This record gives sequence, structure tokens and C-alpha cells, in this order.
Amino acid sequence: MSDSGKLPNLASDAVLKQSVPVPDDFVEVSGIDYLKDSAYNMTAKDLISSMSRMGFQASSLAQACNIIDEMRSWRGKHKSELPEHEQVGEFDDEGRQKTTVFLGYTSNLISSGLRDTLRFLVQHKMVSGIVATAGAVEEDLIKCLAPTYMGDFTLPGKGLRDQGMNRIGNLLVPNDNYCKFEEWIVPIFDRLLEEQQEAVKKEGDGVLDAGSSAILTPSKIIDRLGKEINDETSVLYWAHKNQIPIFSPGLTDGSIGDMLFFHTFKASPHQLRLDIVADIRKINSMAMSASRAGMIILGGGLIKHHICNACLMRNGADYAVYINTGQEFDGSDAGARPDEAISWGKIKADARSVKVYADVTLVFPLIVAATFASEKGK
Amino acid sequence: MSDSGKLPNLASDAVLKQSVPVPDDFVEVSGIDYLKDSAYNMTAKDLISSMSRMGFQASSLAQACNIIDEMRSWRGKHKSELPEHEQVGEFDDEGRQKTTVFLGYTSNLISSGLRDTLRFLVQHKMVSGIVATAGAVEEDLIKCLAPTYMGDFTLPGKGLRDQGMNRIGNLLVPNDNYCKFEEWIVPIFDRLLEEQQEAVKKEGDGVLDAGSSAILTPSKIIDRLGKEINDETSVLYWAHKNQIPIFSPGLTDGSIGDMLFFHTFKASPHQLRLDIVADIRKINSMAMSASRAGMIILGGGLIKHHICNACLMRNGADYAVYINTGQEFDGSDAGARPDEAISWGKIKADARSVKVYADVTLVFPLIVAATFASEKGK
Amino acid sequence: MSDSGKLPNLASDAVLKQSVPVPDDFVEVSGIDYLKDSAYNMTAKDLISSMSRMGFQASSLAQACNIIDEMRSWRGKHKSELPEHEQVGEFDDEGRQKTTVFLGYTSNLISSGLRDTLRFLVQHKMVSGIVATAGAVEEDLIKCLAPTYMGDFTLPGKGLRDQGMNRIGNLLVPNDNYCKFEEWIVPIFDRLLEEQQEAVKKEGDGVLDAGSSAILTPSKIIDRLGKEINDETSVLYWAHKNQIPIFSPGLTDGSIGDMLFFHTFKASPHQLRLDIVADIRKINSMAMSASRAGMIILGGGLIKHHICNACLMRNGADYAVYINTGQEFDGSDAGARPDEAISWGKIKADARSVKVYADVTLVFPLIVAATFASEKGK
Amino acid sequence: MSDSGKLPNLASDAVLKQSVPVPDDFVEVSGIDYLKDSAYNMTAKDLISSMSRMGFQASSLAQACNIIDEMRSWRGKHKSELPEHEQVGEFDDEGRQKTTVFLGYTSNLISSGLRDTLRFLVQHKMVSGIVATAGAVEEDLIKCLAPTYMGDFTLPGKGLRDQGMNRIGNLLVPNDNYCKFEEWIVPIFDRLLEEQQEAVKKEGDGVLDAGSSAILTPSKIIDRLGKEINDETSVLYWAHKNQIPIFSPGLTDGSIGDMLFFHTFKASPHQLRLDIVADIRKINSMAMSASRAGMIILGGGLIKHHICNACLMRNGADYAVYINTGQEFDGSDAGARPDEAISWGKIKADARSVKVYADVTLVFPLIVAATFASEKGK
Repeated sequence: MSDSGKLPNLASDAVLKQSVPVPDDFVEVSGIDYLKDSAYNMTAKDLISSMSRMGFQASSLAQACNIIDEMRSWRGKHKSELPEHEQVGEFDDEGRQKTTVFLGYTSNLISSGLRDTLRFLVQHKMVSGIVATAGAVEEDLIKCLAPTYMGDFTLPGKGLRDQGMNRIGNLLVPNDNYCKFEEWIVPIFDRLLEEQQEAVKKEGDGVLDAGSSAILTPSKIIDRLGKEINDETSVLYWAHKNQIPIFSPGLTDGSIGDMLFFHTFKASPHQLRLDIVADIRKINSMAMSASRAGMIILGGGLIKHHICNACLMRNGADYAVYINTGQEFDGSDAGARPDEAISWGKIKADARSVKVYADVTLVFPLIVAATFASEKGK
Repeated sequence: MSDSGKLPNLASDAVLKQSVPVPDDFVEVSGIDYLKDSAYNMTAKDLISSMSRMGFQASSLAQACNIIDEMRSWRGKHKSELPEHEQVGEFDDEGRQKTTVFLGYTSNLISSGLRDTLRFLVQHKMVSGIVATAGAVEEDLIKCLAPTYMGDFTLPGKGLRDQGMNRIGNLLVPNDNYCKFEEWIVPIFDRLLEEQQEAVKKEGDGVLDAGSSAILTPSKIIDRLGKEINDETSVLYWAHKNQIPIFSPGLTDGSIGDMLFFHTFKASPHQLRLDIVADIRKINSMAMSASRAGMIILGGGLIKHHICNACLMRNGADYAVYINTGQEFDGSDAGARPDEAISWGKIKADARSVKVYADVTLVFPLIVAATFASEKGK
Repeated sequence: MSDSGKLPNLASDAVLKQSVPVPDDFVEVSGIDYLKDSAYNMTAKDLISSMSRMGFQASSLAQACNIIDEMRSWRGKHKSELPEHEQVGEFDDEGRQKTTVFLGYTSNLISSGLRDTLRFLVQHKMVSGIVATAGAVEEDLIKCLAPTYMGDFTLPGKGLRDQGMNRIGNLLVPNDNYCKFEEWIVPIFDRLLEEQQEAVKKEGDGVLDAGSSAILTPSKIIDRLGKEINDETSVLYWAHKNQIPIFSPGLTDGSIGDMLFFHTFKASPHQLRLDIVADIRKINSMAMSASRAGMIILGGGLIKHHICNACLMRNGADYAVYINTGQEFDGSDAGARPDEAISWGKIKADARSVKVYADVTLVFPLIVAATFASEKGK
Repeated sequence: MSDSGKLPNLASDAVLKQSVPVPDDFVEVSGIDYLKDSAYNMTAKDLISSMSRMGFQASSLAQACNIIDEMRSWRGKHKSELPEHEQVGEFDDEGRQKTTVFLGYTSNLISSGLRDTLRFLVQHKMVSGIVATAGAVEEDLIKCLAPTYMGDFTLPGKGLRDQGMNRIGNLLVPNDNYCKFEEWIVPIFDRLLEEQQEAVKKEGDGVLDAGSSAILTPSKIIDRLGKEINDETSVLYWAHKNQIPIFSPGLTDGSIGDMLFFHTFKASPHQLRLDIVADIRKINSMAMSASRAGMIILGGGLIKHHICNACLMRNGADYAVYINTGQEFDGSDAGARPDEAISWGKIKADARSVKVYADVTLVFPLIVAATFASEKGK
């Protein structure tokens, strides 16, 4: 191009290209209206409402709340209208079908103060089934025995190990907590082994039958631990109380696994047996029985895949909210968008779904405040 | 290890290692107390308060609010107590020294609905100086001419280009908006060039002097554009009104640059001149004059570095809040933690600083609601 | 600050602060020397060597290779020098102690072309034990039945589901592959159930004993599947052949889980039982027996935690290489740096460890080319 | 669902859904063939070739190399076939049109050992124009005066500041390096000011004309600094030598800005003037003149946007390779995929483009080894 003279059309045509008329259904981006009093020390509901047309993750957050509200409020037929074999899944107090809500979360969230929020959901029967990692099971119990503390992401590991302080991000768990956990859980394992031994004796060949009482599964043992802990601050306690199953197929991957390992020596040559086949039957059946299925998945890895996979059994969930920090570029399931799950039939093509890209602790307190806990006693 | 017999000490010693007694100043992790009525449809302040001991980014968010509150409330000496050459920096209405607050933000935040929140801060003189990208300057003006719309991250680029719809994440800007911007800004450039020409004539050799009126800088032109737009929804309008300088050393890197480029043809052989030396003098002087300096940096890249660099001139900021999604592992300044800035003298070693790892739109509305907008008229 | 006159000392002192003399052991950053012929179409070893002082993740990559080389080359005592109860762990062909190497990987890596590299390591006994997700087990088998194809991250889920094409990042797996898998695996499950039934009959109460042949575990079933697939392209085949155990405590979380679920109907009321207690005993024992323990962990989630946790049983691994895209800010174990594992006793304080922040497919081919496959037949 | 009986069709239909026949053009995922000798201590070209069908970022990396090879090898018409006004852009030694390649990089990459690779590209005229951040300009010069050293991401900032050691990720720059830089650059600024003063005197009103010698721009001053440094290890030196312009509109945002700031005091009341309008004219003109335009953008922020924006003037680049760690979810330009640039007309709809999600130091050495440096003297 010559360095003087007229602006070439090439540039002006490219830069000043006309656009088509804006379609009528286009929605304008907008933010908080500070002329309103509600813009000051905003409430959760007002914040979420103002974020819905803000763009980026603000909009996704608002959409997540919207989907959760729909998940919660959907009602189908009355039980009395249904043939008997369809009287499955979840019903509200008045007998109308409602959404079976699967909640998934990872260990770190129970270590964090979010545990109280997760317990709130379970205590008030706002979810129907849970998938949790091993750590997410045991840390709930351990917190009933001794607290977790605030730390810092940069505390050097060597010094911490010398002091017996275990770091989880910016949190610290004294190792004594795990010693207390061992003291608490070993007698329970002793009893469970006795019970299993008796059942095996009683049932003989029947131990491979579907309903065999000799069969311990992760969900059964978790239910039992919830009963034994008997502590109202515990997620497991309320899950037991409200008969909300907690699935954890990799239950040996954590402190419970350490204790089971130790127990194989204590009880040698006997060993507890934990079967994972009966649990896959149980969670899949739950998904298939659901009138509608909703997923709230906090974090990635096994808990994310497991809930999605269960929903494949019903040809897809109807609602899906993912909150995690994973990215899709490495092809991991952890980072996959809901649309990838649609290709598998794990989320319905016409389902409402959203992924919020965030550390869960940043957004879930706000989400719950604007939805499940928008009104006391609801 | 033999596969039977006693549990070796190796394992039990490692797993059940005793920890040192928990120091008295350790803080327990805790979450929302749902026994309180304030746990329902929570207010911003209550949410933030409940997040402070929650761990992970929830704690960082609470810390960010805490630092901002300290930044805002700090007061030093009264003007009358100071020798004349120290009567610089920011003072409150009663004449007491207060923090000079630098706010930095990137273009996408102005495209999003967060613009209203940023304008709120400027309108109410809650910040002292701003560093913005070129896009963050022009999109504020363009929004006065025509709206931005909600879109979707996955809309294919080819179809959008055919329609003249420009995508910014999950937002859409019709290209006509830029045509409107061109119509609006060209006459202003014409006037600016005339003024510059007159000043050059008048000043002769003096054009290289510090105070020369022939010198246009990014901050000067931005101030002028704020005056010309004359629209109360605009950040630039209020920045002009309240004499809050907006710095943007890379101002040609965007639509304004396109228009300046076009203008060089229109006005050929004359060209507007935009000097960036006078602006580096201005922002650095501002940092040096500050009694205390605080930084609120939303996003990464130039805006982050520029504010930090200005604060190096005073041997470091006193308060620093970073909010962005960058990571440190690639050695980028964008992803660097506040502690890296401490090594450079850009943040004081004893300053309060935090980085919140999040998309700004997710957390800044909540932060502002709990701090700057915690009470109307404050 | 007055806007004229002398530069205040404040700024010059801060900017031009003198540094301490550079310590003698400081290492200069350097890059590729293009004067050397080896800088052209570089070999893996030369690339890695040139990256070691390059900084950022390049240095971490070089360090990872260095640690792997040390892991591989370490030799301890000769078997004959050891008392009998210490003759455990791994030995080289000449009878000298060597490192027990744990390899962990997620499902997506087997779906990708990295499977060939993982198989290479197993085929040549370069690793001692493996932890894999359910998907990482089954996709290896399925690839023996039908291929996986290249796709694109942006292919819409609905259209794919309509066609029965499942997306994994930018890969596609036709759903027929899973149908073929079902046909292949069901007869194996039938036989396994028969065998389990016979064993139960034979053993009676003994089914809870440590060595009971009635006990099927994930590692046992995986070994059997490797035998049955009988295909030299398979990781599982070589793991069976070389008696390298593959652990997968969450084995039901994937297509194998679907098939086990289906099988509970086919075999009703009988059900296969898969016990996870015996496997935690097995992997932990392996870690405790190791003369030295090394970890190569590709990806996050369960596989990362499980290997680390096993190494806690020996008070920490001696070498650790993490490669993943997780970040620590959300407190997840997936994103935790090796230093967090040190606080838990999962990595020794004086161990050599590194995390490479990258999609595994980007770097692991290069790492293997420069280490395990640096010379043919080594 | 009843917990016994036949497997409902719902599940089997969903899980065993038949897929459409695999289209003929589908490409199978594959990896390294270890039967070949080339699989051992692989060369860059063989590695890249084996990664092309590996999936995830491995495929993207191979695609990046492929696009770069096409960018480099494309040839258009011979100069003699073109009318005079079209004899613009880049030509090869034989007079045939070739691609105008824009290279962008951030400061940290020059601090790292990648500087040698970037210099290699400039030295051998493999790129046509550069956009760099201020830091990327000055760190190249400073490295001619004193080295940068290896450090660690976790070194505490306070201790480093006390020692005058500045941290950049895992690198350290002694603050004395900046003192040396000041000594070196101040006399140059003195001369530049003298020259500018003389030109102003000579030109009078003409200082606002397009070709005025009184106008200093970032690209002009960078060219001068490259001449003055006169050091073959320097990128700037070779850029000067080969007349490859380096653009840096935000040139005051770094140590050069500090020195310019100091210089305004030294030369008071005179000040150097650095105009950014002439540079936007220059880079845009370059893009418009290009027969074909290619972009290689290493990192995000201003450098990414600036190259894309220049290519908008020609209705889009023909080739685009992005390498960075940014994510799109926050709506930042830094994290935007190439497809977003297509919506803006910055990349042509039919262009070849790819984004590699990685720290540049991890992959660019390999990319260059397999492309630009695949053969010596090419």
C-alpha cells in the first residue's frame, strides 16, 4: 500500500461492514441499576437477577440458579394418576412427581466451610442422591471429631509434615484428626466384619444373590457411618436420617481405605468385603426410576462422570449444572462441557444445562442463597 | 512386604503420625449458619462474612472485600497538619488524607454488564485513577450509541461475520455500532487536529516543553471524549466530570486506533499526534503523590502491569486486590501472584494483598455490593 | 508531587535499588544454541537438554525427564545382600534393587493416540504398577474391537447423539464400539460368575479370608480381561503378560459398569461381586515393599490421589512427576502441587518432584522419547 | 424401577444405541509406532508427525506446525507479473510473493531462554513484523548488559526485594541489571531529545505532517535501540539489521517507561515525545500491503489483539497460530479462540487457524525445530 493518499476500500469495507438488522429477540446486555435501593448491600436473589444479562460467567451463574429453580419446582402427575409400576422416583408431600436431584461433590468441598451448605441441602431433603469421593465421605466424619483450620496455599510442605499438619489448598488438618478417626472407625469395622461373617454363614451360596445381607457396598457402609456418627453437623448423618443414598465407588481411595487396609491386618486372615456391583445397580436404577433427573455437579473427576453415566441409563438428564475449574482442551471428562455429555446421551438434547467456570466455594454459597435457601422453611 | 501378619510400623507410623498441638491462633474453618435467619436470601455483607473462614477462593473473596474496606476507610493527617509540599494526593471532604485508589480493567468488562458497576465507582469518586485498555475506553462510548447483546460462546464465527455480528465471549456487538462510532468520533478528531495545529503554530519550539498545549495524550483525549459523549451512563463521562484520569498507553490498539488510522487519510498529509511520554509522567507522579496507594485490578495484561509499575515509583502499593483467571505457571505478568510484585517493589512487603482466581463478572458485583455499595450514599 | 523540578529520591531509590552480588551458584537462563547443528530438526534428548535452563514450564519439562531418568537408573543392593524378608520390591535382571514405578492415567489418554506410548511402557516392563480410571481400562479393550476417530471440540452434541457418535474432546467414538464391547464382555462375565459361584460353594465361610479364590477385585478382573483380549496393541494384554497390576477402585464408573449393571439383570438374581478391600491391601503392600517408589501421574482425580495415598504407607515416594492442567486455587487434590503431598507424607521431603502444567498429550510423547525410548531396546 | 426382573429397554436402548456407519473420510486416532527406529530419541519432525492424529493438544500442535509450514512455503505471483501499485508486501529472493508473517510475544518469553529462538527467527528474516510488549523490548536489551537467572515460583517476595532480586515466574533478574540499563539508555535519550529538538526547529508547523522527522514512534525508537545495542544475541539488533519493524504501542509500560519518566526530570522542562498514531498507520499499512498475512501469536493481551486488529484492515489473516494459556470463559480477548476473531473479520473465514493451549516455552522450541529450523540454512 502506498503510504499516502486515499484510504483503500479494503480497510473501510472490512472495518465498517454493515450488519444485518438486530433481530427482535436479541437481549441487551445490562448490569446493576444503582438508582434502585436494592442495588445496595444486595440480596442473593437481586444479585443473581442483575447478573442474568451481564454476560460471561455472571450470566452462566444466573442461568445455573434458574435451572436449579426449575429443577426444584417441576411437578408431574399425582401418584394416584400413575399405574403402579410407574409409581417410582420422587414425589412431593402432596404426592406429585418431582425431579430426582443428583448432587456430586469432591473431598475439598467438605474440607471447606461449604460442608454446612451441603449438609443444609441433605438435611432438608433438597437432593435425592449423592455421589462423593472417598475424601468427601471421611472428612465429613472427621470434622465431627476435630476441626479443620485455615492455612495458606504457600506453606512449605516439609515444615508442615514435621508438625503433622496436612495441607488441603489453604486449609490445614492436624494429623491427630486421622488418629481420632482411626479410633472411632475401627470398632465399627469390627462390628461390620462380625455381621458380614454371620451373614455369610447364614446365607451360604446366597451371598451372590441380589438381596444378600452379606453384601456390604460403599453406599451401605456410608449409611451406617452416618448412623454411627449421630451428629447433626454431619452430611452423612442427615443422609442416613433422610435415606438419601451416598455413592462412592472408589471408597477405598482415602483415609477409610487406610483404615480398611489396617483392618485387614487386625482381623487377619479375615477381611471385610466391599462390593461395588450392587451399588452400580442401585444408582442406575435410581436414575431410571426418576420422573425427571437433575444433576448438580460440584467439581470434576469420578463424581462428575458417575452421575452423568447413571443418567445415560434414562437417555439423559433433564437438567444439568456443572461448577468446576476444568477446561476442555485436554480432552478430560472433568473439563468437558455439558454439550459433550449430550453427545453420549447423558444429558438430553433438549435439557437445560450450564457450566459455571469457577471454584465452587466462590459461587455455590450465592447460588444456594438465591435458590434452595431463598426463603426459610422452603 | 509379606501379604499376611502384622501391620508394619512403617505404614502406621506414617499414617498415624502425631501432630503438634494446634496453636492458639489457629482459626477453624466454618461455613454458613443456617440456624440464623440471615442465611436465607443472604445479603452481600452476610455472604461475604460467612465466606471469610470457608477456605479456598471463598476466603480470598472475603479478604478482597476486607482489603477494599480498609483501602476506603483509611485516613491520615489533616491537610492543615502537612507542610505545603506534602499537601498532595487524595483528601476526603473534611481534609484528611485518604488512599489513592487505582482501578484497572480490560475491554471485555465494559462490554459486559459490569460497566454499570464500574461507572458507579467513578460517578461516586470511589477511585482516583484508572488504567484501561483501548477497548475498555471505546466500548464505553459505543454503548452510548447502540447496545451490546447477549450471545453464546459457541456461535460459529463465519456465520457471524456474514451477518456483521462481532462476538466477545458470549456477547454480540453489531458492526453497525462501530459505523456509528466512526460517525461520532471523526468530527471530534477533526476538531482535535485543528486545535493541535493551532497550538503548534502558537508554541513553536515549545511543543517539547512539559506543559505544551500542543501535546495530546491518551489521557487527555479520553477526558475529551468523556466530555463530548455527555451521557450519564458512561464511565468516561463521569471520569471527565470528576476529573479522574483514565490512562491507556496502548490507546491505538482498538477501534479508536482504526478511526485514527482512517483519519490519517482523511486529513492527509496531516496527522494527529498522541504522545505517551507525558502520560507516564502523569500516572507515576500520581502514585508518588499518594499518601497511601491501593490497587484494584480486574483482568491481566497491560492494565495490571501499568498500575503496579506506577506504584513502584513509591516503593510499592499499600493495598492490592487482583481478580483474574491467569495462572503463574507460564511466567506471565498477567498470571503472577501479588507476591511476585512484592519482589519488584511494586507492592510493599507489609501491604495487604490478595488475588481472587475468577472471572471478574462472577465476583465483582458481589464485592461492590458488600463494600462500595454496602450503603446508599456512602 | 510537584510536576516539575528534580526527580524525587523516592522513585529513583525504588527503581534503582541495588541488588546483592549474584551468588556463585546462580544458573543463567539460556536457550537453544543455533550455531550447533543439533539445533536443527532437534532430537528429543537435545530439545530437553536445551529446555532445562529456559525457564517456566520448559525447565519443568526438562526436570521431569531428569527425575524419570533417575527413577529408572537407580539401583540399590543385590538381592543376595538382603535378608529374606527384605527381598521384596523390584529387582533388575541382575538382581539389584530398582525403583517401583507407579503410573497413573485417565481415560482420555487411552482414547488418544497416547495409548501406544502407555502400552510401550507396559510392554517393556518400564513401570511396576498402574492406577487407571474405569474408562482407561475399557477404552483400551474397545480399541481392540474398533477404532476411535479424530473429531473437533466444537461439534454440536445433539447432532452427534442423533448419529450415535460420542465425543471425547476432539475425538469421536461410534456408539457401535460399545455394542461390540458388550458382545465381547458378556460371555466373560458369564464365565466369571460361574467361577465365582463355584468358588463360593467350595470355600463356604472362607470367602472372607484374605486369599479366597471367590474374591474378584478390579485388579483381578482387569488382569483377566487383558488375558482374554489377547491383542498386542493393548495395554491390558501386556499388563497381564508382564504381571503388572492395574488398579481401578472405581471400575464400575464407565462402560464396564454399564455392562455389569446389565449383567445383573441377565444373571438375576445372581450378581457378580467385585471387592475393593483386597485391592487396597494389594496396592498399599506394593508401595510398602518398594525399595524406592516413583510416581508418574498423568492427569488428576482418583488416579492421582490413589497412587499418592499408597505411597503414604511407606512415608512418601522418592520421585514424583505430575503432568496435568489442574490448578491449586480451588483446593482440589487434582490441582495440588507436589509440595502439598509432602505435607501429608505422600512424597518424601527430600524427594525429587515436579509438576508440569500441560495437557499430557503435548508433552508425554517428548518425555518418553527423551527417556524411556531414548534408545531402542533400553 | 423395580429392583429385579428384566433390564428395561430404556437403558439398553440408550446405552446400546446404534451409530451411523462411519463415514469414509473419518481419520483414525493413532500414536507412535514403536516398531520403527524413528520412535527412539525422536526428531522434532517425527514427533510432530506422530502427534497429528493423537488427539487433544497433540493434534493442535501438529496442526500449528502444518499451518506454519504452509505460511512459510506459500508463493504467489512474480513481481514482474504485478502492476506497480501491487508490488507491495513481501517477496522471496526470486521475486515471488510470499506471506507477511506477524509475530507477537510477551515480555516473559524474552526473559526466558526462548529469546534465542525468537532471535533466530528475526536473524533469518523468517518473520516480517513484530508486536511486543514494553518488557519484551527492554528485557532483550537488558540481557545484553547482564544475565537473567533461574529461580523458583515459590521464593518469597519480601526476601527477594530485600536482596534486590526481581522474580518473573521461576526466573530472577538482579535489580542491578536495571541500573545498568539506565546508564546505557540515558545518553541515548539525551541524543534523541536533541535530534527531536532540532527537527522541531527545522520543520515548524510540519511536525504534524505524515513524514515529519520530528516524529518519534515506539517502532522508531525500538529500531534505534537495536542499532545502538549492536549485539548479535539481541532480537532488536537483528530486527534493526533486517528492517523488521517491532511495534509496541504501550512502550512506556515498563522499564523504558521508568527511564523516560526519569528523563523528563533530567531534561526538564523538555520532554521527548513518543507518538503512537504514526505507528498504527504503519502496522495497518503493512497488513494491507501483504499478499497473504500470517499470525504467530505467543501469549495474550495487547500483542494478540494488536496483530489481529491490523489484519482486520485486510479483511482477515490467512493463517493464524495462537499459543497461550488463556481461556475463553471470561470473555477476554486474551483467551478468545481464533473463531472469535473470524466473527470480527480479523481472520478469514476460510483461513487455517489453530490455538494451542500451552505455556509457550513448552511447545515453541519443538515447533520451531520442526518447521523454521527443520534444516540448517533454510
